[in-house]
Amino acid sequence: MFCKETIIRVRYAETDRMGYVYYGNYATYFEVGRVETLRALGITYKSLEDEGIMLPVLELQTKYFLPAHYDDELIIKTTIPVMPSVRIKFEYETWRGDQQLNSAWTELVFVNRQTGKPVKCPDHITDSLKKYFP
Amino acid sequence: MFCKETIIRVRYAETDRMGYVYYGNYATYFEVGRVETLRALGITYKSLEDEGIMLPVLELQTKYFLPAHYDDELIIKTTIPVMPSVRIKFEYETWRGDQQLNSAWTELVFVNRQTGKPVKCPDHITDSLKKYFP
Amino acid sequence: MFCKETIIRVRYAETDRMGYVYYGNYATYFEVGRVETLRALGITYKSLEDEGIMLPVLELQTKYFLPAHYDDELIIKTTIPVMPSVRIKFEYETWRGDQQLNSAWTELVFVNRQTGKPVKCPDHITDSLKKYFP
Amino acid sequence: MFCKETIIRVRYAETDRMGYVYYGNYATYFEVGRVETLRALGITYKSLEDEGIMLPVLELQTKYFLPAHYDDELIIKTTIPVMPSVRIKFEYETWRGDQQLNSAWTELVFVNRQTGKPVKCPDHITDSLKKYFP
Repeated sequence: MFCKETIIRVRYAETDRMGYVYYGNYATYFEVGRVETLRALGITYKSLEDEGIMLPVLELQTKYFLPAHYDDELIIKTTIPVMPSVRIKFEYETWRGDQQLNSAWTELVFVNRQTGKPVKCPDHITDSLKKYFP
Repeated sequence: MFCKETIIRVRYAETDRMGYVYYGNYATYFEVGRVETLRALGITYKSLEDEGIMLPVLELQTKYFLPAHYDDELIIKTTIPVMPSVRIKFEYETWRGDQQLNSAWTELVFVNRQTGKPVKCPDHITDSLKKYFP
Repeated sequence: MFCKETIIRVRYAETDRMGYVYYGNYATYFEVGRVETLRALGITYKSLEDEGIMLPVLELQTKYFLPAHYDDELIIKTTIPVMPSVRIKFEYETWRGDQQLNSAWTELVFVNRQTGKPVKCPDHITDSLKKYFP
Repeated sequence: MFCKETIIRVRYAETDRMGYVYYGNYATYFEVGRVETLRALGITYKSLEDEGIMLPVLELQTKYFLPAHYDDELIIKTTIPVMPSVRIKFEYETWRGDQQLNSAWTELVFVNRQTGKPVKCPDHITDSLKKYFP
């Protein structure tokens, strides 16, 4: 298991007329969470794409407990719960101080950009994760 | 069961550098789907809010099968599968021609704007749905 | 001069906590306006990109008079005011009924995707515009 | 004159199928720029709204020189060039390292939320700006 906390400040553009963060915008926050989680492991998602590997999302599940508001400082707690293979799972929790606002997870698949076919998680990712999955 | 199809043309702003519709933007398409489904029943979501009732999303689940591309004409098939009570469920399928791109569902809750408390689905909604749930 | 009206319904996702359409989202509405204007001329922007021509925006100017609200049905009046050469100008007005909400213009440049260099407006576009610029 | 630099990392959601930051998303970056500029002066835009003052945008002008790409670390240089009165102007430059990507400005107006009428810039803002406009 590998965890990483990322701080996101809510932008005005991300609120809706209820005064809440629009429910669809958390998908973007979770993207930032998983990209920063990979970066903390020494992996940039951009270089992955430059190597010819894409990582499209297969599934997204979100449970909303409390709304976030404009200018809130949110903590996105992102976890890689299991060693990735062809797929990689990320779990997310959004917190504001000691209040949990939602929980979510996504499953993504490693895809060869040329062939469009699923491929195994690149070795440099599994190598950098090994010590967290003893 | 009540169903409604809504057509959405993919905007450039909604694509990402993979050339696909960004996975988080489907939440907006589903919003359009459920708003048009309610409108087909004679209910405008705006007037609901003006009556003092909000409808925040409690849960969102999406399974992605195929990506949508720029300028695609998508059909959002939205279904109200069960008679709403305090909560209302919507199911969605996104189609491009005869290809299904994803399936999803959301659960929302009727909330009194003043008190912030859950309330029963307004009578005029259940009335307009009655004939579809014999 | 060539003009085209496009109707856009305001989505919840596009509002902000003021209850207005977020000022940055009009850029997307104007994109829809110019894409539908080209389509009315028999040109799809997508096929343009498939031919290897991109059309990045060089300049955007917007004056906001009145806000748009959730669920408003807006008319985007788009005009090509002068015959395009290496650049193409679009002018926009957003109306709600007989109220003008804003006015804007963009200038875009035809660019060869391979070389990244500006190129002349493709002949099939100037041909389709000729009769409107006698 | 008061200046402030804000760093923004480009999100995947903000790119388009050209691989660039979508031209409309800079409006959001500029919002972040001006909010952080106010915060550097001890003013939170949120508290301004809580006091009953809104700050809608009257005008936006952007000139685009170079595109930003996914994962770029951008510097938004925001300037308040003149002492605000009923209106407040912000100027923006987006930089990636030593490359300027665009320049822009917005004019906003202080509005009383209740009456919808323009009002003078609150004293605590002019007070905090005084020393920068000798």
